[in-house]
Amino acid sequence: MIIIMKTGTTQEGITPVVQRIEELGLKAHPIIGEGQAIVGVVGLPLPPSLDEMFEVMPGVERVVRVSKKYKLAGWDFHPQKTVIRIDDVAIGGDEVTIIAGPCSVESEEQTLESAHAVKAAGAKLLRGGAYKPRTSPYEFRGLGIKGLEILARAREETGLKIITEVMTPSDVETVGQYTDVFQIGARNCQNYLLLEEVGKANKPVMLKRGLSLLIEEWLLAAEYVMAQGNPNVILCERGIRTFENATRNTLDVSAVPVIQSMSHLPIFIDPSHAAGKRPFVGSLALAGIAAGADGLIIEVHPNPDMAMSDGAQSLDFTEFAELMPKMSAVASAVGRSLAVPSAAAV
Amino acid sequence: MIIIMKTGTTQEGITPVVQRIEELGLKAHPIIGEGQAIVGVVGLPLPPSLDEMFEVMPGVERVVRVSKKYKLAGWDFHPQKTVIRIDDVAIGGDEVTIIAGPCSVESEEQTLESAHAVKAAGAKLLRGGAYKPRTSPYEFRGLGIKGLEILARAREETGLKIITEVMTPSDVETVGQYTDVFQIGARNCQNYLLLEEVGKANKPVMLKRGLSLLIEEWLLAAEYVMAQGNPNVILCERGIRTFENATRNTLDVSAVPVIQSMSHLPIFIDPSHAAGKRPFVGSLALAGIAAGADGLIIEVHPNPDMAMSDGAQSLDFTEFAELMPKMSAVASAVGRSLAVPSAAAV
Amino acid sequence: MIIIMKTGTTQEGITPVVQRIEELGLKAHPIIGEGQAIVGVVGLPLPPSLDEMFEVMPGVERVVRVSKKYKLAGWDFHPQKTVIRIDDVAIGGDEVTIIAGPCSVESEEQTLESAHAVKAAGAKLLRGGAYKPRTSPYEFRGLGIKGLEILARAREETGLKIITEVMTPSDVETVGQYTDVFQIGARNCQNYLLLEEVGKANKPVMLKRGLSLLIEEWLLAAEYVMAQGNPNVILCERGIRTFENATRNTLDVSAVPVIQSMSHLPIFIDPSHAAGKRPFVGSLALAGIAAGADGLIIEVHPNPDMAMSDGAQSLDFTEFAELMPKMSAVASAVGRSLAVPSAAAV
Amino acid sequence: MIIIMKTGTTQEGITPVVQRIEELGLKAHPIIGEGQAIVGVVGLPLPPSLDEMFEVMPGVERVVRVSKKYKLAGWDFHPQKTVIRIDDVAIGGDEVTIIAGPCSVESEEQTLESAHAVKAAGAKLLRGGAYKPRTSPYEFRGLGIKGLEILARAREETGLKIITEVMTPSDVETVGQYTDVFQIGARNCQNYLLLEEVGKANKPVMLKRGLSLLIEEWLLAAEYVMAQGNPNVILCERGIRTFENATRNTLDVSAVPVIQSMSHLPIFIDPSHAAGKRPFVGSLALAGIAAGADGLIIEVHPNPDMAMSDGAQSLDFTEFAELMPKMSAVASAVGRSLAVPSAAAV
Repeated sequence: MIIIMKTGTTQEGITPVVQRIEELGLKAHPIIGEGQAIVGVVGLPLPPSLDEMFEVMPGVERVVRVSKKYKLAGWDFHPQKTVIRIDDVAIGGDEVTIIAGPCSVESEEQTLESAHAVKAAGAKLLRGGAYKPRTSPYEFRGLGIKGLEILARAREETGLKIITEVMTPSDVETVGQYTDVFQIGARNCQNYLLLEEVGKANKPVMLKRGLSLLIEEWLLAAEYVMAQGNPNVILCERGIRTFENATRNTLDVSAVPVIQSMSHLPIFIDPSHAAGKRPFVGSLALAGIAAGADGLIIEVHPNPDMAMSDGAQSLDFTEFAELMPKMSAVASAVGRSLAVPSAAAV
Repeated sequence: MIIIMKTGTTQEGITPVVQRIEELGLKAHPIIGEGQAIVGVVGLPLPPSLDEMFEVMPGVERVVRVSKKYKLAGWDFHPQKTVIRIDDVAIGGDEVTIIAGPCSVESEEQTLESAHAVKAAGAKLLRGGAYKPRTSPYEFRGLGIKGLEILARAREETGLKIITEVMTPSDVETVGQYTDVFQIGARNCQNYLLLEEVGKANKPVMLKRGLSLLIEEWLLAAEYVMAQGNPNVILCERGIRTFENATRNTLDVSAVPVIQSMSHLPIFIDPSHAAGKRPFVGSLALAGIAAGADGLIIEVHPNPDMAMSDGAQSLDFTEFAELMPKMSAVASAVGRSLAVPSAAAV
Repeated sequence: MIIIMKTGTTQEGITPVVQRIEELGLKAHPIIGEGQAIVGVVGLPLPPSLDEMFEVMPGVERVVRVSKKYKLAGWDFHPQKTVIRIDDVAIGGDEVTIIAGPCSVESEEQTLESAHAVKAAGAKLLRGGAYKPRTSPYEFRGLGIKGLEILARAREETGLKIITEVMTPSDVETVGQYTDVFQIGARNCQNYLLLEEVGKANKPVMLKRGLSLLIEEWLLAAEYVMAQGNPNVILCERGIRTFENATRNTLDVSAVPVIQSMSHLPIFIDPSHAAGKRPFVGSLALAGIAAGADGLIIEVHPNPDMAMSDGAQSLDFTEFAELMPKMSAVASAVGRSLAVPSAAAV
Repeated sequence: MIIIMKTGTTQEGITPVVQRIEELGLKAHPIIGEGQAIVGVVGLPLPPSLDEMFEVMPGVERVVRVSKKYKLAGWDFHPQKTVIRIDDVAIGGDEVTIIAGPCSVESEEQTLESAHAVKAAGAKLLRGGAYKPRTSPYEFRGLGIKGLEILARAREETGLKIITEVMTPSDVETVGQYTDVFQIGARNCQNYLLLEEVGKANKPVMLKRGLSLLIEEWLLAAEYVMAQGNPNVILCERGIRTFENATRNTLDVSAVPVIQSMSHLPIFIDPSHAAGKRPFVGSLALAGIAAGADGLIIEVHPNPDMAMSDGAQSLDFTEFAELMPKMSAVASAVGRSLAVPSAAAV
C-alpha cells in the first residue's frame, strides 16, 4: 500500500502516519521528493479496509493499494487456466462452448422443441429460466419447479446439459437437484448470501456481470463463491449500462482480454442481453468469439415474436442454425474449435 | 402504445400489425403521414411485454409505450403525497427528517454513544448495520443478531427510531422484530424476492437506488414492495455510478424533483455514500435539502478513522452537530422545517 | 511517481526499471515487500508522459502519478481563492452571482425585454448566444454579429455585463469586441486552439464542463487558458452524460465541493442545461447554491414555448422572478449573499 | 411526431395542442384511449425544434419524434452502401482496410521506418499526427507542417495513402495539401465549424466518435460534413467513456452493426485508443472485424516505450506483423477479404 501525502508535506508531517503503520505491526518506507512525500507500507496480511483508515488521516492526499483484493480468482495463486468439466463438456478449454435456448421455460413443448433444435445446430448446454427476475412485478415470472422438471426432461431426451437461474439462497437446494450449472443473474451479482450458498453447492456457477460492476468487483463476487469451496465459476459479460441506448446494454467486449489478464476463470459472452435486438445478436456473438471468449450463451426461441419474455432479442431456429457455422469459422480463425454437426452445417 | 413503422411503409405494410392488435382484442388507430406511418394501440389492460412483441414484427421501426408501467408508486391513482408516521415522527411531511449513525454496529458502547450524540444534535432515527454487504468476502460483515439487540438497546435509551438493513428474505422476520424501518441496500434494489418479503411486513421500507438504476426501474422496484400490501416505501438516492471518480458515486440530486414529479413517495438523500469522502458530505447534505428532499441519512461515527467500515465518509460528532444548524437554515429557506435542539444549536 | 511491479517481482526484476529512471536523471527508491515490489521516482520536472513510458516496460503492473498535472489551476501555487472583478461585479467572492437570459439572441426586442426583466429580478450578467452550436445542421444557429450588436445594446440600456459563446479561434477577436466574458461551450471544452486563443485575450472566460470530462481533465482545459496568461477562468458544471435520461444531463452537484478542494477558480452551476426541463430548474438552482456554488447561469425567455432553442428548459420572467428570493434565502443560509432588488422581492 | 398527453387528458385538454399544430400548417390526428390521449402530427417538413415547443405546453407529458433528424447519412435517401475510393484503395467494399502508423510523427526516420513496416505487413494507409490534441498543455503537440511534409515523403516512398488529424478550420487548407484523408478527432466530433470546413474540402473525412456521443448525434455530426457537399465520411468507433477503467475507454463494438442498420457510411474501429493498453489491442482488432467493421486504424511504433505519445497502446512492428494474418483469417471467416503480403504472412 502506498500513502500519498499532500503537497508540501515535510518529514514532520509524515510522522503520525509512520507511527500508525508501526502500531499496526507493519513496516513504513517513507520517500521524500521535492515538494512531494509518499509512504510505502509493507507487511502481510494488510487489513482489507486499511486504505480507508489512512485516507482520512490529516495530511494524506490519497492511498493506493498495491496488492489485489481478490486471491482465489486471480493468477497469482492459480497459474493454470480453469477448465470445468461436466461429463464430456469441457468449459474453458480449446473448444468454444455454445449454450442456447429460450429465455423462459414456457411449456414442455416449447422447451423440448428448442432443445432439439439447438442440439442439432451444435449447442452443448440448454438454457431456460424457471425463475425469472422481471423489472416489473406485473410480468411473467416463470413456471418454478414445473419449469425445472421440464428442463430435466429436455436433458433426458437430448443429452444436453442444463443451466438455469437461481434467485435466492433458499432455492439453491431445489434448483441444484435439477440443473447442471447454476446461473446467477446480473441483478444478483452482488447478492452475497446467494453467492455463498451456491459456493457451498458442488455444481458450476455462471456469474453474470452486474450492470455497472467494475471488473475488479466482479472478480470479488466470484471470490465469494470460491471462498466457500466451489472453484468452478464461469464469468459471463452481458453488457453494461452506459449512456448509449441504441442497444439494450453496451457489450464490453474488452472484458474478455481484461479478465483473461487478471483471472484463470472461463469467460463467456451473452450477445442476446447485450444487444437486446435480434438483428445485432449475430455480430456480437462473432465479436465475442474473435475477442477470445470461452463460450457464448444465446437466446433461441421457436417463435420469438410470441415469446413470454425477451422475444425481441431471441433468434429463431433458422437464424441460430445459420449463425453456428459462422461462429465455427471465426473460432477456427482465432485458433479455437467449435464443432458444428454436419447436418446443421448445410 | 404507439407502433412506429419503418420509413416508406404503406397502408398494406401495416395490415399485419393492425390484425395482430385486433386479435389481441385491442383497437388500432393507424396514421399515415408522408413517408411515415404509425399505429396507435388503445385498450386496457395492455399486456406488459406487448411492446417487445411488436418490436420484432417485420416493418416495425420501434414501439413507444404511453402508459406508465408503475401504478401504485405513481400520482395517477394516489394524488396525495405519502406521509409515513412512526409514532411521533412523520416522514414526507413539512419537516425534513434526519437519520444518522454509524455504518456498522461495532459494539454497544460505539452504538449508544452515537445514538446519544445524533439525538442531541437533532436526528430522529438511528442508522446502524447489523448485516453488512461488503464488496470483498474478506471484510467485516456485521454482528448479526447481536447488532440488532444493541440497536434495540439504543432505541430504549434514547427514544430514537431504528433503521437497519435486511439482506435476504429469510432474515426479514428476525430483523423485523427489532427494527422500525427496513433498509434495502443499493445492491439489493432489484432482489425481487426480498422486496416482496418486506412488502408482506408491516413496517416502512427504505429502498436505496441501485447503482445504475433508471428512475423508472427504481419506481418499479418500489412497486414490488407496494404490490404486496405495504404502501410505506421511502426512496433514497445514494449516488449513481458514472465515469467520474473524484467522488465514490455521483449524487443524482435531480432525482429529488424528478421523483416528486412521478411519485407520491418520500425521497431521501444519502450524502455519505454519494460523496465517499468526509469533506464533501456537508455540501451534498445541504444540496439535497435545497433540492427538496424529505430527509437525509448520514453516517456518523465516534471515531471515523477507526471505523470498521466507511470511515472515510463518516462525520464525527462535532462535524455532525455543526452541520445540523446549517441544514436547518437551508430547510427554512426552502419552506421546510428542521428543528435543532437548543443545546446543539450553539 | 510510483511504479508498481507485477506480483513476484524480485530485486533483479526491478533493475531495468531503476536503470531507466537513472538514465533520465531521476532518482529511484525501490521498496521490496513480501511478494510485492514498488519503485518510487523522485526528481523534477517529471516529463508529462513518463507514466506511459514505464507502463509498457516488462514486469510493470501499473504506474501511479503523485504530482498533479495541473499547476496554475490548483491551490499549490495559488493559495488564495480567485475573485474576478468586472467593474462592480465580483465573481468568486461572498456574493453569489446570477447570470440569466435567453439561450439565443433572437431579436432586439426579445433580448432587451429579457435584459430588463432579469436585471429587475437581480441578475448581474446577461447571457445570450449569437453563435450557437447545434446538434443538427438543420437548426437555428444564431444571428452572428447582429446578435453581438444586440447584446451590446442591452448592456448599454441596462448596465448588465454580457456573456456570450465563442465557437472558433478566428471569432475570438470579434466576439471580444462586444462581450465582457467569453463562454466556451461544453462541446468545445477540449478545443485546445480555441482555449489558447481566449487565453491570449484579456477578458474572463467561462469554461463549461465537457459532457464526459473528468474533473481533472476539466482543470487541465482551464490550464490551457491560464498558460497563455489569462488567469480569469470561471468553471461551470452543466450536467454530465450518464445512463439516466429523466433529465437532459445529470447535474454533478458534487463538482462544486470537489473543485473547491482542488482549485481556487470560481465554480458555477448551469441548472437549465442540466435539467433540460423547466419544472426541475428551480430545484437544481437551489441545490447548486446550497452546495457552495459561486454563481448560476440560468436560461430565461420572454415566451419559452416560442423560443428558437432550449425553450423546454427556459424559465419565463415570472418563474425567474419568483426563484430569485428563494435563491437569496438559500445563499444566506449557507453564509453567502445574493441581493434581490426590493421591487422584485414581492 | 407524436404528442403524448398527461394521464386523464380529455378531448377538451387536447384542443390547444391541436390548434397550435394547425396554426403551423400541419395536420393533427388525435387518439383518445381509456385515460390516455395522444396526438399524431403529420406534415413536412417538421421544424427541427418542434418537439421542444410542444413539450412545454400545458397538459403534454412528452413528445416522440418519428422522423429521423439525419437524412444524408441515413439509408432512406441513399440505399447503396458508400464505397470511398482513393486511387486503388476502396473503403467500405468487400475488403477490410487497415490503417496503421504512429500516434505522432516524431521524426522522418521514425515515420519512414513505420511506413515501410506497416506497408510490408499489409496496411493500405499510414496514420500519423502532425497536430496533436493533448489533455495537458505541457505535453508534446506535434511537429506541425514539418510533420505533414514527412508524411508526404512517406507516401512518396511507399505508395501508402495518408491520414492525419486537422484540429481547427483555419488549418484545413494546409492539411489538405498533404493528406489523402482528414481525421477529425474524438474531442472535435462536435466542433461544427471544423466539420463544415472539411465538408467543403474534396477529400474523405474520418470522423471519430466523441467520448460520450450517442450514435444518433454522431450521425448528425457526419451530416454537418455531408451537408456541405462532401459525401465521403468514414465513421470510426474508438471507445466511449463509461464507469469501467480497466481499459482507457470502452469499445462499443455494437456500434458496428448499429451504424450499419442506420447508415450507408463505412464504419471503422480504433482498437488502440479503445484499449489503451498494448496487450488488449489484438483482441479488440479481431472483435471489430468479426462484428463487421469495414476497417481498422491501429497505432504502430518502431519503439513503443520511447514514443512521445500513446506508447502504452502502440504495437511494435513484430506485434503488428503477427496480428495481420489473424485479422485476415477472421475477415475471411465473416466473408470479407484482407490480403496479407506473402512475405509478411510467415
